[in-house]
Amino acid sequence: SRSTMSRHFSLGEGTLQVPMDLFALNRNRLCKSLKDLPKTPKNSVVILQGGQGVPRYCTDVEYLFRQESFFHWAFGVIEPDFYGAIEVDSETSHLFIPKYPEAYAVWMGKIFDCEHYKQKYGVDHVHYVEEMAMILENAKAEMVLTLKGMNTDSNLWTREAVFEGMSKFKIDNELLHPVIVECRVIKTPMELDVLRYANKISSAAHVAVMKAVRPGMKEYQCESVFLHHAYFHGGCRHVSYTCICGSGENGSILHYGHAGAPNDKTIRDGDMCLFDMGAEYYCFASDITCSFPANGKFTKRQKGIYNAVLEASRAVIAGIKPGVSWIDMHLLANRVMLVNLKEHGLLQGDVDDMMKANLAATFQPHGLGHFMGLDVHDVGGYLEGHPARPEKAGLKSLRTARVLQPGMVLTVEPGCYFIDKLLDQALEDPELSKFLVRGAIDEHRGFGGVRIEDDIVVTETGVEVMTEVPRSIDEIEAVMSAKN
Amino acid sequence: SRSTMSRHFSLGEGTLQVPMDLFALNRNRLCKSLKDLPKTPKNSVVILQGGQGVPRYCTDVEYLFRQESFFHWAFGVIEPDFYGAIEVDSETSHLFIPKYPEAYAVWMGKIFDCEHYKQKYGVDHVHYVEEMAMILENAKAEMVLTLKGMNTDSNLWTREAVFEGMSKFKIDNELLHPVIVECRVIKTPMELDVLRYANKISSAAHVAVMKAVRPGMKEYQCESVFLHHAYFHGGCRHVSYTCICGSGENGSILHYGHAGAPNDKTIRDGDMCLFDMGAEYYCFASDITCSFPANGKFTKRQKGIYNAVLEASRAVIAGIKPGVSWIDMHLLANRVMLVNLKEHGLLQGDVDDMMKANLAATFQPHGLGHFMGLDVHDVGGYLEGHPARPEKAGLKSLRTARVLQPGMVLTVEPGCYFIDKLLDQALEDPELSKFLVRGAIDEHRGFGGVRIEDDIVVTETGVEVMTEVPRSIDEIEAVMSAKN
Ligand SMILES: [Mn+2]
Ligand SMILES: [Mn+2]
Repeated sequence: SRSTMSRHFSLGEGTLQVPMDLFALNRNRLCKSLKDLPKTPKNSVVILQGGQGVPRYCTDVEYLFRQESFFHWAFGVIEPDFYGAIEVDSETSHLFIPKYPEAYAVWMGKIFDCEHYKQKYGVDHVHYVEEMAMILENAKAEMVLTLKGMNTDSNLWTREAVFEGMSKFKIDNELLHPVIVECRVIKTPMELDVLRYANKISSAAHVAVMKAVRPGMKEYQCESVFLHHAYFHGGCRHVSYTCICGSGENGSILHYGHAGAPNDKTIRDGDMCLFDMGAEYYCFASDITCSFPANGKFTKRQKGIYNAVLEASRAVIAGIKPGVSWIDMHLLANRVMLVNLKEHGLLQGDVDDMMKANLAATFQPHGLGHFMGLDVHDVGGYLEGHPARPEKAGLKSLRTARVLQPGMVLTVEPGCYFIDKLLDQALEDPELSKFLVRGAIDEHRGFGGVRIEDDIVVTETGVEVMTEVPRSIDEIEAVMSAKN
Repeated sequence: SRSTMSRHFSLGEGTLQVPMDLFALNRNRLCKSLKDLPKTPKNSVVILQGGQGVPRYCTDVEYLFRQESFFHWAFGVIEPDFYGAIEVDSETSHLFIPKYPEAYAVWMGKIFDCEHYKQKYGVDHVHYVEEMAMILENAKAEMVLTLKGMNTDSNLWTREAVFEGMSKFKIDNELLHPVIVECRVIKTPMELDVLRYANKISSAAHVAVMKAVRPGMKEYQCESVFLHHAYFHGGCRHVSYTCICGSGENGSILHYGHAGAPNDKTIRDGDMCLFDMGAEYYCFASDITCSFPANGKFTKRQKGIYNAVLEASRAVIAGIKPGVSWIDMHLLANRVMLVNLKEHGLLQGDVDDMMKANLAATFQPHGLGHFMGLDVHDVGGYLEGHPARPEKAGLKSLRTARVLQPGMVLTVEPGCYFIDKLLDQALEDPELSKFLVRGAIDEHRGFGGVRIEDDIVVTETGVEVMTEVPRSIDEIEAVMSAKN
């Protein structure tokens, strides 16, 4: 029989081998955190319900299955319709698998038994879903901990586990969520390895796009190049979010690429491209934005805006370390960008005054970055006991306001956009309009935007940047001139 | 202002331009069918609710939006959260669009007004969703027809439209479903053009895969080549169903490729490949299976099985014409395959007796094919007033048992698989085992399977095959030897 050490997930040669120990460690961390809480009852059992297939409306076609993130964090299971249980005191783990009719084999493939999944996922026990209540009774579960909590990015609630025989048990649905969320905020070295891999693949896919892009192509063809590279070379069947391939003025639409604006513009000579795409490996996310001129050569104007954002990015990355507040990093990015836009002739007046008036939110209406992990906007941004969401424009879009700790993974993604509506608002606002050089601003209308987004880890002493794409103007022009 | 004729959907040069008249004609056909029914009340108004975004669990990531098929059939709208109304007597059409807050523009792009969508989709009127009840009152709607019915492939029910102020109206939810379903069964010439295009793109993508495949590659890399070709060259962002890339023994798992068996085997020299993949353009499906040896050269054994299936396929295609029963076509495919398997030395005895014993279902447990349109398994298979689902193995998997009519689009997909469980069952069954040449059967265990799937249109006089991929052994070997 195989040892725990040999169990891993992988998609073959060249793709990352992820040890099942990653999930065992997560379960143990969760148990320790729960046991550290005085209010956790003795003989508590955590119950998590895995994800299910989602049909496209009333048809028999399903969206490509993607595991639920909390369940993945604890068990690493790729199949739908599982449940998992963790006995907190003894740290004993159970998986519960669906029982399929024999005919299933013809359509879906070999039906594996419990022992198969015990070996595959390295849990202590595997049973059938229909045995859940019995197993919990045998384990003398005095309290069942289910997952109930709101996601602070979507405002949607987790789906609490439901199973037959549940009514026999005392249920606590408040204890678990903040504890497991806090566990997810701090990444383990094994998790970091997977996040680094997803980043490596996505970085290479971005470079493939930069080499392939030419004026006259459709934006979605760049999306296709990215998806293909990430899947073919990296085993990434999913992306962490819908690809954003904005060229020209579309670069200023923050969530461009959705069904109503599906990356369908023709890329023109002279356009800036703002491509925000991230592949997902085994449910681990990446989230990278590259901005570059479609024709491979920056104009003077493009250089000015690009370097303003790049300097903001580099200042933040130099500033990140444990103990630093994410709000301060956001404000640092704002300040550096304003200084640069002033040097570039777009702004006038005192930068301290601009900061007080929150002028930066006119050019960057979004937050500096967000937690990233199994979800691209990972959980834990506004957990109780940590700073609440700020109220000012720009800052209020921050997905967390926390103080940084080692093991946190975040995106650093300052941006500068020329959004007519926000520029018009600022020009009409006496507090803001005095800083704007109207002629220079108007010349930039239709420019679109620049965003530079890297994924970073907070280390004990500073920061590790996982993203590896050309960032300086020279590097970008060199890569793009080496087109195939 | 643009004329109706100039309105179209397209994803740019090289992709198909689909006229909005396609949907106007569908709406008119629906109105005429409803008016032909004596029981349709005067001043009836059809209300359809468009699709909505589906979040991945409680996160703020959504599955890539795909329009609901009935709504697409009637309006061709690519955006989520719309409603549509059709006044049956006057054939007047209305779209209802969501009203977004101003801040939406920064994240999602320009907010368009009603006039924009009136031009874009060529409907008579566009209003906001919140105005629905008022507009229905103004139209003096005496009966609102909503869509309620079960999909006979999924056994799931349509989601009936729900809107504010609905309680003011009389609702009939029985009349509409069978009528609109029957309209969807018969494709118009404009719809056929789009289905042909989706088929052309998918055919070319299959050829790209056949040229790229090599022993040592992962099955999912072939999926990636297909997806990339269909999107990059054809503008197909979606596939009609999850790609099935079975090699070797996986070729016998009918719905291989799902999350639990994600095309992750390494393709070996000597494997047969059974790749079932179809791209979707503007919600119009395709569904094509190609079977070929991974190394580009058929062995004698592979030739035998392949040609048995190919002869079944060609016999059916030669037999299809209006008035023919789909059950008879299924049985024809069965018979031709049995004759060939007997010649190939796998079977013995009288083929009539094999047919009576339903031996074919051991080798082909699925139906011959299914309707295809906006859904890969299109609606209307078992509509009231048409033949019910048969009960025999194989036949009971048929997704329709109807008599063919011009304008129907179906797949023709005979297959031959070596499924241990079914072979063992047959060998233990005295009625079946006498036909089996055990030694030859056992030599084919692990072979996997062969399926040949084309998409066809029933014409006035016969059949049009939309799929254009190499089908004969010579053609396949020629294409694969011309590898890049
Ligand atoms: Mn991001
Ligand atoms: Mn099919």
